[in-house]
Formats: sequence, structure tokens, C-alpha cells
Amino acid sequence: MGVYQETISVETRRGIAYVNCTQLVEDVVERARVGTGIAHVYVPATTAGLIVNEDESGVRSDIERMLEAIAPAGYGWSHDATQAEGNAHAHLRACITGQSVSIPIAEGKLALGTWQSIMLVEFDVRPRTRKLVVTIVGE
Amino acid sequence: MGVYQETISVETRRGIAYVNCTQLVEDVVERARVGTGIAHVYVPATTAGLIVNEDESGVRSDIERMLEAIAPAGYGWSHDATQAEGNAHAHLRACITGQSVSIPIAEGKLALGTWQSIMLVEFDVRPRTRKLVVTIVGE
Amino acid sequence: MGVYQETISVETRRGIAYVNCTQLVEDVVERARVGTGIAHVYVPATTAGLIVNEDESGVRSDIERMLEAIAPAGYGWSHDATQAEGNAHAHLRACITGQSVSIPIAEGKLALGTWQSIMLVEFDVRPRTRKLVVTIVGE
Repeated sequence: MGVYQETISVETRRGIAYVNCTQLVEDVVERARVGTGIAHVYVPATTAGLIVNEDESGVRSDIERMLEAIAPAGYGWSHDATQAEGNAHAHLRACITGQSVSIPIAEGKLALGTWQSIMLVEFDVRPRTRKLVVTIVGE
Repeated sequence: MGVYQETISVETRRGIAYVNCTQLVEDVVERARVGTGIAHVYVPATTAGLIVNEDESGVRSDIERMLEAIAPAGYGWSHDATQAEGNAHAHLRACITGQSVSIPIAEGKLALGTWQSIMLVEFDVRPRTRKLVVTIVGE
Repeated sequence: MGVYQETISVETRRGIAYVNCTQLVEDVVERARVGTGIAHVYVPATTAGLIVNEDESGVRSDIERMLEAIAPAGYGWSHDATQAEGNAHAHLRACITGQSVSIPIAEGKLALGTWQSIMLVEFDVRPRTRKLVVTIVGE
């Protein structure tokens, strides 16, 4: 039983933009040499999130449409009144998705469903370099 | 300190449908013989989710009403334009709830609050057989 | 490799009310004497949630505005028809945020981003004493 951790850098485009990180995380699991456990993926950000869903263009644009309705950009948000960046909606969308996902590891691999991908979602108004902290616990 | 994992099958009805999985997960915790730790419950799906809330008929229908407003079925979603299943809204609702919950284990039991139940929520348009991967870490 | 757990009490005001718990959790991490691992924070409640975001007054009120639109108080919810408390919206908001967050530990500290704070969010209609269960796994 042990713990293994790596931090990975990921470049994003301005939001909403998706980066499929499944293979990056799978590679960390392989290097961790863990047969059974949990992979925890974390983005130390307040304007980006992580989701697990189907990496399909329709799903990606439907998520954007849903989040634009829930937390529209430029909607007179209080955070935008005091901060010049105009990214209040990005903070709100990150609250909806959360900043971490955790996936079981079975037989040395991520136990993802057939259509599941791990996706970093950039919500911010400019391209960013995002860190992903991947922590593996198991044996 | 160790890790213990079981995969359980759960039958669902067409969405929105709830399956209270609290006892199933508690049984895994008991078999894991862990006094202190974390129970991670995961559904490897893109059209179902997991929540922790009160298993009460009003709460269940209120959640359905809220999700129907956020992500209505048959709303001209892009995913529905290319996929015959008509389950775009199920993908979106799974993004809102997420596909995993994790609960602390204390004194050999799930440290759930008085009104908390672990509920698998089927969002898809037909009954499914869902797998739940329960991973316990602790000692 | 080990597990360490503490339960902390936090007093809240009526919702929506935020309590920044970052230092409380950091203190538990320090007492756990773990260099690398995961900190899991859990509120055993159905009408409160946990988020990681910027602890700034604009962000806090924007989140409230967003949640009031998604799950308005006193909206003819079914749960309110049978329960006298009138907190159906609090259950719904807890479904949106979730009741746990987990944060990586690196070099003996929470690996939080620059603007990230761990915030307990009270959604209920009266002040509550909330328990936070903090579970640390790592080595």
C-alpha cells in the first residue's frame, strides 16, 4: 500500500475549452505500478474544472450551452464589478463541475466506463497553463 | 493500511430513477474490515450519477424538477442530433451530479449524517444494468 | 502509509452562509504528519455543501445568485409540502455542490491553488452546528 503523486502541465485555450486528459492520467497510473486503488485528479484553480463524460462534439457543446444558461458570461456579476478580468462566470461554472475527479483503479488500469473520458474544462477568458495534480493510492 | 474493492451490479428503471445503495455500500465496508478510512463509490457511466441526500419522495421529485429545468429532455441538444438515443440531457445531468461520491469510514461504519443516503440516479431513457465500483482505503 | 481522521465542529449562520475552513483543514494535515497524500473533507449533512473557490465577497454573492436561480427558496417544492422546515431548496443546492471535497497533499501541505479556499456552505434556513469529518490518507 502506497501513495504516488505527479504534477502535469496542460495548456488550454480560452473557455469553454476541453482537454481530454485520460491518457495522461492512465500513464501516471502505469508509472505508479498500482493494481487496485484510486486515482485522484485535481486542478488547483478557481476558473477551471474537471468532469468525466463522453468526449463527443455534441456533448461538449451541449455542456457549454447548459453552463451558459446557468452562469452566463457578462451577466452583471458582483465579482466582475470589482475585478477587471470579467471571469465571474468561470468561477461559477467551476463550482458546478468541481475541481477534482477520482476514478477507481482495477487490474492496474483506470476503471472507466466505455464512453467515459477525463476532461479538464477551461472556463476562463484567456488561455492558461493548468497544473493537474494526480495522486494515486493503492497497492 | 490496505485497499479493498468490489464491483456490484444494480438494475435501474428509465430516468429519472433513484436506487438507494446505502446498505450495499455499508455491506462492502463491513467485508473490508476497515475501522477508519474512505469509501469511494463510482459508477462507470456517462448517463447516470451518484448523490448523497435524503431519500424522501419530495426531495427525489424536487431534484428531478430542478434537473429538468437545467437540462430539459428533447431540447434540441447537439448530441441528440447525431445520436439516435435522445439522451443528451442524461449526459448533462450526470455532469451536474458527478459519477462518484466518497464517504468517510469511522469505527467500521460509513460516517453518514442522519438523513444521508447514497443514491444512484439513472438519467438515461431506458432501464440499465449499472455497475458500482466500491473502493475502500483505510486500516 | 496510514490514515488519520478528525471531526471538527463548525457553527454556521442561516443560509446562504460561507465558512472558510482552509486553515482548519490545514491544521489537521499538519497533525496527520503526512508528506504526500489526499485530504478528504466531508460534511454529513443534506442541507449544506462544500466547495473550493475564491473566498471573495463578489464570488460569494454570485454563487448565491446562481443557486437562487437554479433552486429558488419557496418555489412550491414537494419536500416543502410535507416538511414544515421549508428547506427543500437547501437539499437541492447541496446536490449541486456536493458534500465533500478532496485535495492533494504535497510536501506536507494542502496543494491548493493561489485563489482556492475550502468553504463550507450553509444552505439551511437556520443556523446549524455542522460537523466536518477530515480524513487524511498518505505517507
